[in-house]
Amino acid sequence: MEDQSFSKSMTYAPGLPEGATFYSAHKKRVTSEAVERAAEKALAERGVQIDDIAEIVFDLQKPFMSGLTKALCVENVKAVLAKRELQHAILVGIELDRFAEKKMLSEPLQSLVDQDEGLFGVDETIALGAVSSFGSIAATTFGYLDKVKPKIIGKVDLAKGGRVNTFLDDLIASIAADASSRLAHRVRDDEEKRAAQSHRK
Amino acid sequence: MEDQSFSKSMTYAPGLPEGATFYSAHKKRVTSEAVERAAEKALAERGVQIDDIAEIVFDLQKPFMSGLTKALCVENVKAVLAKRELQHAILVGIELDRFAEKKMLSEPLQSLVDQDEGLFGVDETIALGAVSSFGSIAATTFGYLDKVKPKIIGKVDLAKGGRVNTFLDDLIASIAADASSRLAHRVRDDEEKRAAQSHRK
Amino acid sequence: MEDQSFSKSMTYAPGLPEGATFYSAHKKRVTSEAVERAAEKALAERGVQIDDIAEIVFDLQKPFMSGLTKALCVENVKAVLAKRELQHAILVGIELDRFAEKKMLSEPLQSLVDQDEGLFGVDETIALGAVSSFGSIAATTFGYLDKVKPKIIGKVDLAKGGRVNTFLDDLIASIAADASSRLAHRVRDDEEKRAAQSHRK
Amino acid sequence: MEDQSFSKSMTYAPGLPEGATFYSAHKKRVTSEAVERAAEKALAERGVQIDDIAEIVFDLQKPFMSGLTKALCVENVKAVLAKRELQHAILVGIELDRFAEKKMLSEPLQSLVDQDEGLFGVDETIALGAVSSFGSIAATTFGYLDKVKPKIIGKVDLAKGGRVNTFLDDLIASIAADASSRLAHRVRDDEEKRAAQSHRK
Repeated sequence: MEDQSFSKSMTYAPGLPEGATFYSAHKKRVTSEAVERAAEKALAERGVQIDDIAEIVFDLQKPFMSGLTKALCVENVKAVLAKRELQHAILVGIELDRFAEKKMLSEPLQSLVDQDEGLFGVDETIALGAVSSFGSIAATTFGYLDKVKPKIIGKVDLAKGGRVNTFLDDLIASIAADASSRLAHRVRDDEEKRAAQSHRK
Repeated sequence: MEDQSFSKSMTYAPGLPEGATFYSAHKKRVTSEAVERAAEKALAERGVQIDDIAEIVFDLQKPFMSGLTKALCVENVKAVLAKRELQHAILVGIELDRFAEKKMLSEPLQSLVDQDEGLFGVDETIALGAVSSFGSIAATTFGYLDKVKPKIIGKVDLAKGGRVNTFLDDLIASIAADASSRLAHRVRDDEEKRAAQSHRK
Repeated sequence: MEDQSFSKSMTYAPGLPEGATFYSAHKKRVTSEAVERAAEKALAERGVQIDDIAEIVFDLQKPFMSGLTKALCVENVKAVLAKRELQHAILVGIELDRFAEKKMLSEPLQSLVDQDEGLFGVDETIALGAVSSFGSIAATTFGYLDKVKPKIIGKVDLAKGGRVNTFLDDLIASIAADASSRLAHRVRDDEEKRAAQSHRK
Repeated sequence: MEDQSFSKSMTYAPGLPEGATFYSAHKKRVTSEAVERAAEKALAERGVQIDDIAEIVFDLQKPFMSGLTKALCVENVKAVLAKRELQHAILVGIELDRFAEKKMLSEPLQSLVDQDEGLFGVDETIALGAVSSFGSIAATTFGYLDKVKPKIIGKVDLAKGGRVNTFLDDLIASIAADASSRLAHRVRDDEEKRAAQSHRK
């Protein structure tokens, strides 16, 4: 890898002292593209397709939008999956599920995670942190999905045969809530544009 | 009021420079007791009784606790209403509802609040801020209640005749979610104590 | 206003029953444009210019980006001010400051706000709610600015002569933290694009 | 372990269907005591003593409280470490630091964590989630500590020799912010009690 192509001027890292560099010769550069691919691959390996999440978004928004298509929901799920904070949350959550599945976590964390202990809370925290990127309304929708567990969320929550999906179900709820909120904001913007145009006529 | 009875040593105020005093002669002292009474009075004046909220807590926890009584739910609602952050949220939210009812807010805020605009979000933000004092699980429960709007929450949400309850319904959801989370944590603590005792026998 | 130009199909409002309509004949339509103009006007009337906020962003990011210009900071402040959730937070916060200034809030809320009571917290909650739209790193930056109160934040915090800026100082910290986080993410994206191009050569 | 001593009535687990049981024969029971001991042990093994954290609390509150003792700060740090949500956050964060140190995380997560990537954010999310249990003022203090990194926070942040403390520094900031907020609320309560007594005389 030719890190020499980076000059020190192309650096950013909050919290580091003046003159600190982010890209440097001894560091393995992680591109956004690599993170995005890894997050989508991790979801797929755990049995979650973008279509499954889009279906939840469709059910959430259908009552409020006539003419809503599944394709528009897919588009919005893909758009939120392009967000760094959400990708990072997915990578961390699924990694912890995998370690728990292989009984590799230290006790008592292993038991807390593989039993999906009701008062654990870190799974909700990580998912809520990602969801907050799309406003308090997305946070509300997340809470609803996390309780009701529709479709793919319920399916992974009840997975058997040694599967641990303690973090995964919350992550899916987070992605669906984000996409749903994004869709609502975009549709509103479109409405206003159309309204402005029809006034001008 | 005898503010002289306070010495400068009894002061605290984060963010102020060294030597700053909170209690001082020119300031009207606000006691916690006064704030607590005001918050409960505000709720009552808007038609919300502690019993109404306890009922929601009961419905939420009943499936998981045999022997749960309404009295225990009332006790937990009262306990969370003793929290400063929640009291402050109640005072601010209900004040804004009242101003909106009297058409005293400036435009476009007046329209955003009195129409309970779907993408407004500040009502959820204030309620979520108070709810976060009881962990991410309370935040999840809040989201659920805010969508489903059971009992008193739905009742105030649909209030007619010029009533504006844009903030109130979220505040009730917040109180119920807090109390529900507090109850769950306490019951767990009790279980553990009883378990420890029965082991000792 | 010709609300007839809206069909019922162009509606969205989360939490309302199926068939509910947002735009309707008896409602005064609030456009995003009107909200955006109102938020900027409110800031200006309270003595806060976009340039003042951009200066804080510049100071925050300067250590990590060589060649950072003030113009780029202004651009990012303007971009975050186009976000609905932040505009709504600004309108609510400044409205409460104004009511407090005119002694129009009911007690004990009036005293809590006009004394900028250290444990009040609703001002931070509203500002943090808006900041969360830009990730946990923005929330961290907000906390820092809220304590250190550089430049315009400190200036409004110490305003005298009956001025109440209890909410305003937190709102400015929120806008600056948002813009700073947005800038950091954009610069990273640019770095990656340039890196990808230089690899291809 | 004699799980028979638990009856099905002593169960609680939010989100599970009616009749679900938390304690059951095939599950390894995790007591609060075990979790608390594990969290404190994990901190100690990473070189963090309660005294180190109490020192930060002391520095934060000293300007506002005359007569503040180190012992009172220690007491408040211990009290917040008794909170389940914070213990769980500590266990998860330190586990991830350890895996990163042993190069056991999958790529690209391994690189994101062991380089303490500036825009990662999950470390702040987990720490902020725990901090939110003590109100928005604690969240503000957390942000400040996370930027300024005083004393033990800076020490672990700059640890060398293959050490990874990406999550640990944020966790310490969270504990200190929680304890500081708890202390402020308690001191206020005490002030009010003393004031009430001196009025009665």
